[in-house]
Amino acid sequence: MTADTNPPTARRGRRPGANATRQAILTAARARFASDGFTATTIRRVAADAGVDASLVMQFFRSKNELFAAVMSVPADALTRFSAAFEGEDDGLGERVVRAFFDVWERDVQSSEPLMAMLRGAIANDGANEQLREFLQERLFVDALASRVPDEDVTLRVGIVSSMLVGLVVGRGVVGVPTLSGAEREQLIALVGPAVQSVLIPGGSR
Amino acid sequence: MTADTNPPTARRGRRPGANATRQAILTAARARFASDGFTATTIRRVAADAGVDASLVMQFFRSKNELFAAVMSVPADALTRFSAAFEGEDDGLGERVVRAFFDVWERDVQSSEPLMAMLRGAIANDGANEQLREFLQERLFVDALASRVPDEDVTLRVGIVSSMLVGLVVGRGVVGVPTLSGAEREQLIALVGPAVQSVLIPGGSR
Repeated sequence: MTADTNPPTARRGRRPGANATRQAILTAARARFASDGFTATTIRRVAADAGVDASLVMQFFRSKNELFAAVMSVPADALTRFSAAFEGEDDGLGERVVRAFFDVWERDVQSSEPLMAMLRGAIANDGANEQLREFLQERLFVDALASRVPDEDVTLRVGIVSSMLVGLVVGRGVVGVPTLSGAEREQLIALVGPAVQSVLIPGGSR
Repeated sequence: MTADTNPPTARRGRRPGANATRQAILTAARARFASDGFTATTIRRVAADAGVDASLVMQFFRSKNELFAAVMSVPADALTRFSAAFEGEDDGLGERVVRAFFDVWERDVQSSEPLMAMLRGAIANDGANEQLREFLQERLFVDALASRVPDEDVTLRVGIVSSMLVGLVVGRGVVGVPTLSGAEREQLIALVGPAVQSVLIPGGSR
C-alpha cells in the first residue's frame, strides 16, 4: 500500500495507505503477541498476518521490541477517561473510578486489547513491565487526585487503587474466577466503589 | 532413598528418606519452573538438579504436569493463616486479612515461593491457572466469612478481596511499581485495611 510496495512505475507522491498499513500491522501484532507471546512471535509471522512484506514491518517499527512497545502503549483516550473519573465531587469518586476502569478494560475493544496485551506482556518482557509500572502510578491520575487531596501519599493511593483494580480485572477476565466472571458489572461497582473511595480520600467520605 | 531404590538386600520397613527426597525434588522443580518456565523444564533436568534419578521423579509425581501441580500447590499453613485472619471480631477484620496476606506472600519464603510460582505459572499454563482460580475463591475463606456475613454474595466478596490483594502484591513485588515497592508494610495495611473491610462486611464497620 505504500510507495515502497508499489511497482516502480506507479504514480509517486502522497502515500494514503501508510497509516492504514501501520494499523494493520499493529492489529496483527497485537493478536499474535497475545496468542503466541513475545518470544514465539516473529516479525515474519506478523507481516504474513497483516498481508505485507516483513521489510515493511521493519521500516515502520525497526525491531520486534519497538513493535511490541507500540502494541503495548496505553491509548490516550483511555487515559483521558480515567482522569475525567478522578475529577468532580468527592462524593461517588470511588464508584466513578471503578466504572471508568471497567469501561476501558472490558467494554471498549479499542482500549482493552492494548491494555490486556500490556498486562500479559509484562510477565514475559521487561519493556512491557516498564509501561505497566508507569500506568500503575500514572501522572495524570496522580495530578487529578492531588488537586483534591492535600496529602503526600497521593501517588501511593493511586498506585494501590490501580493495582487492586488491575487484579480484579485479571481475576475476572484472564484467570476467570467463576464468581468474578459471573458477577454483574453493576454489582462489582457497588461492592468495590466504596473500597476505592476509602483508599483515595483520607477519612473516606462516600 | 525409598524402598524401591534400595538394593533387594537392604533392610525393609520405614523409609525415612522418602519425604526428604520428595522435598528435594519439589525444591529443584520450583526453582527450575520459575527460571525456565513450564515448557523448557524437563523431568530429567529437575532430577539432575535434585541429585536423583529421573525415574524416581516419575515414581513420585508420575508426569511433568503433576510435578508442576505439586509445586504450585498453596501451602496448607498459608491457608490456615488466612482463614484465621477471617475469624474474630468484625472490628479490624480488613486489617487482619491484609496483614495475613502480606505475611504469607512477602515475608515467609516457605509460603511466598509457591504462591509466586503459581502466579507466574498461571500466565503460561492452564494447570496453574486452575489453581489460582480456586485460590481466589478459596472455600476456607468463604466458609470463615459466611459464618459472620449472612449474605449470598460471600463468595463474590472473597473473590474481590483476594484478586485485589493479589493485584497489590504483584504491583509491589513483580511489576515493581516504585511507590508500592517503596511503601512501608504498615502504611499499606493502614490504607488498604479499611477498603478490604468495606468489601467484606456489608455496611462496612471499621
